[in-house]
Amino acid sequence: MTPERQRLLQQLNFLREIDKVKAIVRKTSLFDGSRRENDAEHSWTLAVMVSLLREYADVEVKLERTLLMVLLHDVVEVDAGDVFIYDPARAHVAAKEEAAAQRIYGLLPADQAQPWLELWREFEARQTPEAKFAAAFDRLEPVLQNYYNGGGTWREFGITKAQVVAKNQPIADASQRLWAFVQELIEECDQRGDFA
Amino acid sequence: MTPERQRLLQQLNFLREIDKVKAIVRKTSLFDGSRRENDAEHSWTLAVMVSLLREYADVEVKLERTLLMVLLHDVVEVDAGDVFIYDPARAHVAAKEEAAAQRIYGLLPADQAQPWLELWREFEARQTPEAKFAAAFDRLEPVLQNYYNGGGTWREFGITKAQVVAKNQPIADASQRLWAFVQELIEECDQRGDFA
Repeated sequence: MTPERQRLLQQLNFLREIDKVKAIVRKTSLFDGSRRENDAEHSWTLAVMVSLLREYADVEVKLERTLLMVLLHDVVEVDAGDVFIYDPARAHVAAKEEAAAQRIYGLLPADQAQPWLELWREFEARQTPEAKFAAAFDRLEPVLQNYYNGGGTWREFGITKAQVVAKNQPIADASQRLWAFVQELIEECDQRGDFA
Repeated sequence: MTPERQRLLQQLNFLREIDKVKAIVRKTSLFDGSRRENDAEHSWTLAVMVSLLREYADVEVKLERTLLMVLLHDVVEVDAGDVFIYDPARAHVAAKEEAAAQRIYGLLPADQAQPWLELWREFEARQTPEAKFAAAFDRLEPVLQNYYNGGGTWREFGITKAQVVAKNQPIADASQRLWAFVQELIEECDQRGDFA
C-alpha cells in the first residue's frame, strides 16, 4: 500500500471512530421535546449557532477555527461518556477526557493529530476568543432546549436558579448581549417554576 | 420589544425550525450499521469530512464557506423531505426544494436570509470550487456507509454498478485522488456482489 493510501485509510478510520458520538445521548432534549439529543446532533447545532449568531461575540472570532472546535469538542465522549453538567462527578472527567483525546486524535496522521488535539485543549481551557465563543454555545443550546421544553433537565433533576446562573457564566464571558437575553429567559423560567 | 431583541428571536426561530432535520431519516445507515442516519448527523459528518480531507481538493477551497454549505445544505428537507438519490422522483424535487429554501431561509433577518439562500443555490448548482467539494462529500459519505455495511442501500434497492459510478461523478469533479480511491472501493463491492 502506498503511504498516501495509508494516510487516507487512517483519516477514514478516525472518521469511523468518531461516528460513535451518534450513539452518545445527552440529558437535554431536542427543541420540540420529542427525544433526547445525541452528541453529533448537538455539535451540528452548535456549528449552526456559531455561524448564525457570530455578530453577538464581544470580541471578533475566527469562524473557521470556532467551527472546527465545536464540531469536534465532544468526540472525547466516545471514551469518556456524557456527564451531565450539574453532576458533581464532572470534577473527575478532565483526566478521562484528556486520555480520550490523546487516543482518538492519535488515530489521525501525526500532522493532523497534533493541531486537532491542541484545538480541543484550547476549547477546554476557554481562554482564547474562539474557545470562549464556542463554550458560550455549548451552554446556550441546552438553556434554549430547557426553555422550550418547560424546564427540561432543570425540572427533571431539581436544579436551582443559582446553579443555572453559575454554570452559564461562559455565555457572559463571550457575549454581553446573549447573556442579557439569557438572564431574561432564566427570570421567565423562574416565574413559571422551573427551578428547584 | 427592541429591534435587536426582535432580530435575535427571528434567528432563534430559524434555529428551532431547522432543528426538524433531526427527524428526517435518510436511506443510508451509520458506519456501524446500527440504524439509519438523520440529516443533522449527516451534515455534521460532512462538515468533519470537509475539514479532515481538505487536502484532497483538486482546487483550493475556502473552508469557512464550504463548512457553511454542508452544514445547511439539507435544511430544505424540512419541507421537501429526503428523496433517495437513485429514486427517479428526484428529477421533480428541485422546484420543491427551491420553495422550501425560500420559506426556511426567509425566516431569517433579510441581511442573513439572502446570502444563506444564495449559498444554498450555489451548493445546488455545483459550479464553484466550494460547491463541488461539498457535493463530493455528500456523495462520498453514503459510499463509505454502504461499503462498511456490506452493500447497504445498493443491495437493499437493487442498484447497479453503472448507476453508482454515474451518481458519484461529483467526487471525480472535485478530487481525482478521492475518486481513484472510490473506484477501488466500487470494484471491491462489485467483486463481493453488492450490485444488482
